[in-house]
Amino acid sequence: MTAMTDQFTAGAGRTILSIDAMGGDRGPATVVAGISRSAKKNPDIGFILHGPRAELQKLVARRRPLQGRVEIRDATDVVTMDDKPSHVMRHGKGTSMWSAIDSVRSGEADVCVSCGNTGALMALSMVRLRKLPGVNRPAIAILWPSRNPQGFNVMLDVGADIRADEQDLLQYALMGASYARNGLALARPRIGLLNVGTEEHKGRAELKAAHDLIGANAEAAGFDFVGFVEGGDIPGDACDVIVTDGFTGNIALKTGEGTASLIGDLLKEAFKFSPLSRLASVLAYTSMQRLKKKIDPRRVNGGVFLGLNGTVVKSHGSADATGVAAAVKLAFQLAQSGFSEKLAARVASAAAQVQITAMDRTESGDTE
Amino acid sequence: MTAMTDQFTAGAGRTILSIDAMGGDRGPATVVAGISRSAKKNPDIGFILHGPRAELQKLVARRRPLQGRVEIRDATDVVTMDDKPSHVMRHGKGTSMWSAIDSVRSGEADVCVSCGNTGALMALSMVRLRKLPGVNRPAIAILWPSRNPQGFNVMLDVGADIRADEQDLLQYALMGASYARNGLALARPRIGLLNVGTEEHKGRAELKAAHDLIGANAEAAGFDFVGFVEGGDIPGDACDVIVTDGFTGNIALKTGEGTASLIGDLLKEAFKFSPLSRLASVLAYTSMQRLKKKIDPRRVNGGVFLGLNGTVVKSHGSADATGVAAAVKLAFQLAQSGFSEKLAARVASAAAQVQITAMDRTESGDTE
Repeated sequence: MTAMTDQFTAGAGRTILSIDAMGGDRGPATVVAGISRSAKKNPDIGFILHGPRAELQKLVARRRPLQGRVEIRDATDVVTMDDKPSHVMRHGKGTSMWSAIDSVRSGEADVCVSCGNTGALMALSMVRLRKLPGVNRPAIAILWPSRNPQGFNVMLDVGADIRADEQDLLQYALMGASYARNGLALARPRIGLLNVGTEEHKGRAELKAAHDLIGANAEAAGFDFVGFVEGGDIPGDACDVIVTDGFTGNIALKTGEGTASLIGDLLKEAFKFSPLSRLASVLAYTSMQRLKKKIDPRRVNGGVFLGLNGTVVKSHGSADATGVAAAVKLAFQLAQSGFSEKLAARVASAAAQVQITAMDRTESGDTE
Repeated sequence: MTAMTDQFTAGAGRTILSIDAMGGDRGPATVVAGISRSAKKNPDIGFILHGPRAELQKLVARRRPLQGRVEIRDATDVVTMDDKPSHVMRHGKGTSMWSAIDSVRSGEADVCVSCGNTGALMALSMVRLRKLPGVNRPAIAILWPSRNPQGFNVMLDVGADIRADEQDLLQYALMGASYARNGLALARPRIGLLNVGTEEHKGRAELKAAHDLIGANAEAAGFDFVGFVEGGDIPGDACDVIVTDGFTGNIALKTGEGTASLIGDLLKEAFKFSPLSRLASVLAYTSMQRLKKKIDPRRVNGGVFLGLNGTVVKSHGSADATGVAAAVKLAFQLAQSGFSEKLAARVASAAAQVQITAMDRTESGDTE
């Protein structure tokens, strides 16, 4: 134990986050810069930082806000973006990612944050944290800029699993509602099921089944079910949580990001076009910065893995210090609200509810 | 035959388009305003206009550019947005939509344009025009603003059918390539297959099979196959044509539209925010109009039904005169290039090619 650890232990009462320093595109210096920003803004966070000790000690020592706030856990191996999840599951024990997840497993930290390889992070999280009782497929949930008063909608799954049957979609609805309650402070979130039309007869068979199942569980689970929604409702105000399978969710997420990025670039070009428009860009600077902040993907950085015994926040691999700080902020909010425990309780009670409903129906001969 | 028809017949050499005047959200006056705009700009278009004769005659008489350019076909029934496709197929004979499609069936017009109910339009087109030999599922293709030099990418299917197996996806690749050649003047289009990652082992089984099938047919069909692409590549420059099933394509299309519309509204708000930003909006007006024109969905209005004996352009139901004119322009370009015949030839030759390849493989015992 180092002197740093002693100082750290002294900082009792802090919410401790477990941070994977490695595996991001910009290396550990960016991660340390990001958590330093968070530490400066928020005196209630402490960090367990995972990676090669000597390198991390140097980086941390340079950041005054991190003094006495960081415990370093030596982990010499790194999961790269090209590593196959199956390989990491077998041989990843010495990696910073494994070590970072294990701090949540042991209960030392409430939430883990990593910029690393998504597939490997999900695979390791499944193996080390295990699925919550009653959850078949964990999901990745993200926040999406929207027309709703809270400014964001929740969408899940955006890529944990390319398949989802009606039972999975029901669990996504429960988990998404829980995330909206704790991440967006919505007492009674409105849930929508993503489809190609809002009429009840449209779409694939599992979507029709999920429509009925989610509707039947809405009251007991404390959310409103608005039925089918379309792609245009993801940034809209028809609902707060969009439920879909990980294939469709991933395509929608990347299409939205790509469209926003194209428009942003065209806008920059437009402002550069003529002397008048260049002058305009100076005058509009403050307003444009405000707009940019509103839809900047770095400000809503962090996919959250739901359905495990513990919460893992996946930051963008290319996140800069601002992006890392945003992911840390999200992790802190979730840890503070006791999100992991609340989610587990919701899923468990809903699983029991579904079982009871199923038993009732069998007994009464009501098969609908 | 009216005097109008005589004048019309005299305008020989014109490219004749069949226009469904009814079924759009804004009624026939908007459709007539739209085709009038097209007629003014382009002396080489003539129209067969379908709907209630008395009403249409009055609307047409008011538009000078349409004098001698329109033949009206009386059709008193209208397909509404709420009509079920199955109902329209059985009882739709007296509708303007049926009549408009039949002008393509009879060969009087090369391309049909309608703002009506998409499901009904596809169902009637299937029944009246029939599928091309070798096509299992027709598709709807759209143009999407992109970073490519041509300014747009083609995406299909965006909602003709929620299912697509590997053979369907191969046909979409062939039809999309043909559309890119004739609609965007790309001699050798680059085709991408939409997936959740670019690695070959990712995604659903039918996507892996389609990957191999499209790759094996690229050379003979005269396109380049770039392999899997992601949602972010839809507005990108990695390929010119994005191939996907109608469920995923529809979600992606509406997500992209919704995201663009949200950003547009936030941008307007930002410009209104302060006196300085309001001044900026005046100075940037011309540049912003240019940008708006570039990504205005009305300017790329028109989903094209591919895989039928004849081409049908589906305009947005809410299209205004600008939107209708854009759909007419697209229909004209496709008619002029002899698109329907070229597409049919491509699909037929590819179907033969696939059959030969399959036979070769069976004979040589190569099952890969």
